[in-house]
Amino acid sequence: MRHLTFDPAAFRWAGVEERAYKPPDPSAPRGMDWRDVTRHRLGHPDELGMGFELRYFELGPGGYSSLEKHAHVHLVVAVRGAGRALVGDRVVDLAPLDALYVPALTPHRWANEGADPFGFLCTVDADRDRPVPLDDDEWDALRADPVTAPYAH
Amino acid sequence: MRHLTFDPAAFRWAGVEERAYKPPDPSAPRGMDWRDVTRHRLGHPDELGMGFELRYFELGPGGYSSLEKHAHVHLVVAVRGAGRALVGDRVVDLAPLDALYVPALTPHRWANEGADPFGFLCTVDADRDRPVPLDDDEWDALRADPVTAPYAH
Repeated sequence: MRHLTFDPAAFRWAGVEERAYKPPDPSAPRGMDWRDVTRHRLGHPDELGMGFELRYFELGPGGYSSLEKHAHVHLVVAVRGAGRALVGDRVVDLAPLDALYVPALTPHRWANEGADPFGFLCTVDADRDRPVPLDDDEWDALRADPVTAPYAH
Repeated sequence: MRHLTFDPAAFRWAGVEERAYKPPDPSAPRGMDWRDVTRHRLGHPDELGMGFELRYFELGPGGYSSLEKHAHVHLVVAVRGAGRALVGDRVVDLAPLDALYVPALTPHRWANEGADPFGFLCTVDADRDRPVPLDDDEWDALRADPVTAPYAH
């Protein structure tokens, strides 16, 4: 058994270390940069013997994740603050306990445009492919739409 | 993309139907009965192409799940109210965003001893075995310990 107690004041789990979202990469391809994102591992298949992984991600004010796509899907449940997600050709608002499914090979990025932290749980298959940048057609389509353009940078 | 918006007042997701926890079974084996539990499917592999399933379970006041074990593991995150879990030979309290891992073949039961609903997210592998009742040794050990006895019924 493993019991991770949650501290609402700190919005953190006892014994769960804060990790970098990804290794820093100054030469990241177009759109693959990110800002002020932390990762917290709540359940990892190497430790717990299951086929999935559960992470908590948190974006500080002004933070954003990399704009990427991959064959594996995401199932996200917002738990802290308010945020926004670009998924495919849409932008959606996320409030606590909203659930969001990101299909395979669909470009996506999370962004925090508010003044408080935005956090969400994200479950993925343990066996999964690496994220890749968008191709030119995908990039151009996002840039051409005023709704999505602010998230293609 | 699939966006399930959450209604905090109703504590429900738009478009997600409330299902029975399990089919009623008047001849359930010892400990396998349950009371006032609902199930809400937030992400199912048949629809979403992933190797795991995400459910929300809710126990009304006085509710409890079946006392069971199985080879697949559970990863639970409490989200509503307060509850209690019997896992193996321990009983733990759960408050919102506490995370709990139930290892393989470990007897477990959730219970709501409060006056308000108790709800949690639970992720499981899509490919998993059926729950089974406890054997006599497991049952007797739970009954012999005053901490766990109230949950072995």
